[in-house]
Amino acid sequence: MPESFEISASSGRYQVTVDSGLLADALRSHAGAVILIDDRLADALPAGEKKVIRVTAVESSKSLEQAAPIVAKLRELGAHRRTHLLAIGGGIVQDVATFVASIYMRGISWSYLPTTLLGMVDSCVGGKSSINVYDYKNLVGNFYPPAEVLIDLDFLRSLKAEQMIGGLCEAVKICYARSAEEFSAYLADAPAIDMAPARAERIVVRSLRAKQWFIEIDEFDQKERLLLNFGHTFGHALEAGTEFRISHGVAVGIGMVVAEEYAKQNALLAPAGRKCVERLTGHVELLLKELPQLADELRSLDIDLITEKFDNDKKHQADQYRIVVPKGNGALELVGVARTEQGRMTIRKAYRAAIERLAKINQLLMI
Amino acid sequence: MPESFEISASSGRYQVTVDSGLLADALRSHAGAVILIDDRLADALPAGEKKVIRVTAVESSKSLEQAAPIVAKLRELGAHRRTHLLAIGGGIVQDVATFVASIYMRGISWSYLPTTLLGMVDSCVGGKSSINVYDYKNLVGNFYPPAEVLIDLDFLRSLKAEQMIGGLCEAVKICYARSAEEFSAYLADAPAIDMAPARAERIVVRSLRAKQWFIEIDEFDQKERLLLNFGHTFGHALEAGTEFRISHGVAVGIGMVVAEEYAKQNALLAPAGRKCVERLTGHVELLLKELPQLADELRSLDIDLITEKFDNDKKHQADQYRIVVPKGNGALELVGVARTEQGRMTIRKAYRAAIERLAKINQLLMI
Repeated sequence: MPESFEISASSGRYQVTVDSGLLADALRSHAGAVILIDDRLADALPAGEKKVIRVTAVESSKSLEQAAPIVAKLRELGAHRRTHLLAIGGGIVQDVATFVASIYMRGISWSYLPTTLLGMVDSCVGGKSSINVYDYKNLVGNFYPPAEVLIDLDFLRSLKAEQMIGGLCEAVKICYARSAEEFSAYLADAPAIDMAPARAERIVVRSLRAKQWFIEIDEFDQKERLLLNFGHTFGHALEAGTEFRISHGVAVGIGMVVAEEYAKQNALLAPAGRKCVERLTGHVELLLKELPQLADELRSLDIDLITEKFDNDKKHQADQYRIVVPKGNGALELVGVARTEQGRMTIRKAYRAAIERLAKINQLLMI
Repeated sequence: MPESFEISASSGRYQVTVDSGLLADALRSHAGAVILIDDRLADALPAGEKKVIRVTAVESSKSLEQAAPIVAKLRELGAHRRTHLLAIGGGIVQDVATFVASIYMRGISWSYLPTTLLGMVDSCVGGKSSINVYDYKNLVGNFYPPAEVLIDLDFLRSLKAEQMIGGLCEAVKICYARSAEEFSAYLADAPAIDMAPARAERIVVRSLRAKQWFIEIDEFDQKERLLLNFGHTFGHALEAGTEFRISHGVAVGIGMVVAEEYAKQNALLAPAGRKCVERLTGHVELLLKELPQLADELRSLDIDLITEKFDNDKKHQADQYRIVVPKGNGALELVGVARTEQGRMTIRKAYRAAIERLAKINQLLMI
């Protein structure tokens, strides 16, 4: 049963469609478009497609330095102001497409087909790009939503367990951030790594509808939308500190557990809130348990390095760390933590507790 | 007598102020800002300024490749989301500042102090950036107006004749594009290379007010604003074909003469329009006459190369060249020319006539 809805952005409205078989439709309706695609997926294209730019989906591809050769390739393929760009891939392809489409001849129209669950449940709407500069992760970026988002559920079949887990971590984060009701409804949808397309569609639509509320009320990340950084500031440091061996969605999952530990250690939660957060991190733990190699990775983590990476995050202010944590009855808040040696130690302590706890989740499996 | 007015953009309103002594005011009111400045002007800063990024004002500095080191420098200077950027320089500094401010941490606020007449009369408003990629001139860019434009007339004292001429070529282009009345009023202001500050202020305000009409009615270059490309499509090819020995403003001046020749050769003008355009190019010729080295440059031009550069301009469509030419009573129109060998020859012929004509304008001086 296809689902379709519209998102409002300052640059106009764009349509989100969730269905199977959308790739073939898009190739038909955008004949002549330049296709920007994850290198690993390029074989899925019909043999006749000539205007194709392949992107290797690694962190270094979404960099300001790598934008130049992609732009030059667009030019060499004859792209002009009315050329449409069809981007097919996960978060890295989306970041590259958003950025390149926004600047090429001061902006060309584009469609996005997310191919990971993380892209489908979260990043495909909102219009943000995050681009690295040298070793600075996500130092630059902008807002440039596509003309349409086409979520082809057929891509789910090709995903590995880790990609499904990462996607569900983001989906539950969004639903939790939206409201206690939305979070309960998400759990009632019985999200799982091996869910069938119809169930996946329900989760995708629920997550995107929840995210829609945030991006329509706060397109440019000034207030409400900042709550969607839940798990992210803690998570980014885990990605950076492991040279991205811990992938984004998984890092967000762990980051939510760090936030829970921070909230508990600093007595931010009332009893009802504690229970609510524990339902969330219980679900996250169930998901993370499916990654047998994660425990080893966590045991070998250098917590000082992670804390240092956290310290370098651009979302902090000069005198305050900025973190999103559950408070009181469990609702999220953006909280400032004094950027002193003592503040740093409270952050480090939360990381340590979460990491030690998660390093044990699949102990039973390992015996 | 300071002048001040507001420009509306989709991102908000911004104030334009024209006066003397504005640099010192800006340094005071934006203490703590990072200063992005033309290398040659950096000595004008007080000795104490520490957060300074120097830009060499050459074409290669406004490139996608060169954006990365500037962004990294901002990060090393500790710039965060609330850091203000103060950009001081001509068109190249403005392009770099617009682009870098728009992407740094997804956008920081900035002020622009134009230091060339061309910057003051034209490019300082409108919010566009034009950025090169490898050998492709202006292939990427975006729209990101500053929070305020501060036109400090004191900078005019440091300008060479060629810079004043380039600025006046842009100013007269804007006034001519706006209306016959505006063009007459511009001429009545007696624009000249050695004008005193009060006269320069009148020209600056007149030109910016005329440009304001275009950018407020058509911020994103869809229709009316395209008329401001008058002289530009022809001019860009002259810049590119001489490796920028012919500077932008001068190239626009010559480009308007090429457009006039095109209109005459293709019988686009009524007698009244002819007279009107001749007043315009007569003024341009008077200005260009003051550049004794221009005639030699024009005589050594490779017209085939210029035509080839014209052919490569991104503003054309697949099947049409797009040029702005005077028609009928002299008003400008965006015209399509079939992109055939024959079409190319009509363009080449207009270049040839204009170049031969301008190569002779200072013949008397040379005897």
